[in-house]
Amino acid sequence: MADLLVFGSIAYDCIETPTASEDYILGGSASYAALAASYFAPVKISGIVGADFKPSDLERFRARQINISGLEYSGKPTFFWRGRYHDNFNSRDTLELRLNAFEGYVPQLPPSCADAEYVLLGNISPDHQKKVLESVKNPKFVVLDTMNFWIETALDSLVEMVGRADLFIVNDSEAKMLSQERNIILAGRKLRKMCPGAVIVKTGEYGAMLFHKDGFFVVPAYPVSDLHDPTGAGDSFAGALAGYLAGIEKTDFASIKKAMVYGAATASITVESFSCYKLEMTGRQEIERRAKYIKEISQF
Amino acid sequence: MADLLVFGSIAYDCIETPTASEDYILGGSASYAALAASYFAPVKISGIVGADFKPSDLERFRARQINISGLEYSGKPTFFWRGRYHDNFNSRDTLELRLNAFEGYVPQLPPSCADAEYVLLGNISPDHQKKVLESVKNPKFVVLDTMNFWIETALDSLVEMVGRADLFIVNDSEAKMLSQERNIILAGRKLRKMCPGAVIVKTGEYGAMLFHKDGFFVVPAYPVSDLHDPTGAGDSFAGALAGYLAGIEKTDFASIKKAMVYGAATASITVESFSCYKLEMTGRQEIERRAKYIKEISQF
Repeated sequence: MADLLVFGSIAYDCIETPTASEDYILGGSASYAALAASYFAPVKISGIVGADFKPSDLERFRARQINISGLEYSGKPTFFWRGRYHDNFNSRDTLELRLNAFEGYVPQLPPSCADAEYVLLGNISPDHQKKVLESVKNPKFVVLDTMNFWIETALDSLVEMVGRADLFIVNDSEAKMLSQERNIILAGRKLRKMCPGAVIVKTGEYGAMLFHKDGFFVVPAYPVSDLHDPTGAGDSFAGALAGYLAGIEKTDFASIKKAMVYGAATASITVESFSCYKLEMTGRQEIERRAKYIKEISQF
Repeated sequence: MADLLVFGSIAYDCIETPTASEDYILGGSASYAALAASYFAPVKISGIVGADFKPSDLERFRARQINISGLEYSGKPTFFWRGRYHDNFNSRDTLELRLNAFEGYVPQLPPSCADAEYVLLGNISPDHQKKVLESVKNPKFVVLDTMNFWIETALDSLVEMVGRADLFIVNDSEAKMLSQERNIILAGRKLRKMCPGAVIVKTGEYGAMLFHKDGFFVVPAYPVSDLHDPTGAGDSFAGALAGYLAGIEKTDFASIKKAMVYGAATASITVESFSCYKLEMTGRQEIERRAKYIKEISQF
């Protein structure tokens, strides 16, 4: 097993869904991704938290054997996001966003994290992602995640990072936006030309598609009927996927396909509760059960 | 091989897509479905055409060995639809709709069609579907298709027909509308309670889901990069699926799964041209190739 470095945001979220709401709950791309990855490989989390960050939330990472030596601490409050999901759970509005600790942040990766071979650059500014990647001594496999906000506000930096990634993950609307294609297949193929490795286009409740030099692959989503909060689904998918690859130390086409199945299985657990509650409490056994079920429903 | 009776609309369409347009081309649910089914089983088409219906279009059915003795002929013009697809090809506006021959139409199924064991009731008014089904002597397996218009305007009749079908096919937004559920999994499960048989929820460019008493199944769409006109994709899916089942004379869970793969393969051909041009010209060999590819991209 190789170590996986997970870098991204660590946040407090206030979330409203059509059926419920919760305030100041642990969120952020690195939180979800690190917890998801922790079921598959030794994880080191990196990012910055604020003065208000609760020791009990640090304990949640430690409880999953996540190495927190790469965390930095700011005198400002923790990154804050308030969002509201629309009636169909598929789209959302950002009601409030405070960068707080991330304002003016220049990541300083400690030596304890700089020798990771597997790196997941979770959704955050591509400039932050770049700074961290440049601090990693000898990265073997780099997974890059992003979101529409960075396509709109930091396109050049993002495109540069896509060019350095081994696996780039986006959702379908972001893939179309970034490629300027209407068709998801054309979008995926065009992004593959921008990324030396492979591209995964996530399709939400439908699953995800892999565009790889050795072939095309589609994994269905695990059928979720008890959806509580979609936040962190993509981060959990990326985390479990990168964790699985680090865990088996393989990154070929067949391995990425299997990693996507584990990503889909793990993401389906995340959305069945607010925050990381269900993700951190559910064992590998339930992930394995869901991965097996995904295989079952896609065979004929 | 059992015969398949295909009933539905036969139409002339004027279609605008973001990239091209064509006027007065052969369309309608029965046209697409019958041509798609013709690759798998002996097909009898039923429906009404107008005085303007071109002999050359009748010839297109005959060329695919489709029995046209169940067609009726009206003095009015053929059913007419003018539609425009939006920028993403996923939604469309009806600009003009003329019932013409379908106005006041009471289907009279000739004896030559009344002994079909497999029946596809393509998208059309549920009252027309009901009249035809009641004329079939001993239906063994009934596939029912519909669209949002009938959910909005003929709900009671539609629900009655769903209760009589062995397999009910809808798309995702229609499934949510009819079940009044936000979640596609909950929607599918709820529709299953309305339908004594099984329910297929089509998810467009993502594929389709089967809700069956023996299990759940997801088939990915064949990846289409050369999309010309989405019209008829659903009809072709239903036609190929029903044709496959009639062809092998089996309707169990495993057979419906395989039928969905052939449905997806065939629908992907339809959307690569306007009207039925590519569908009627492409042989079974290409359908087999695409079905095999769908298997390949969903295995891991």
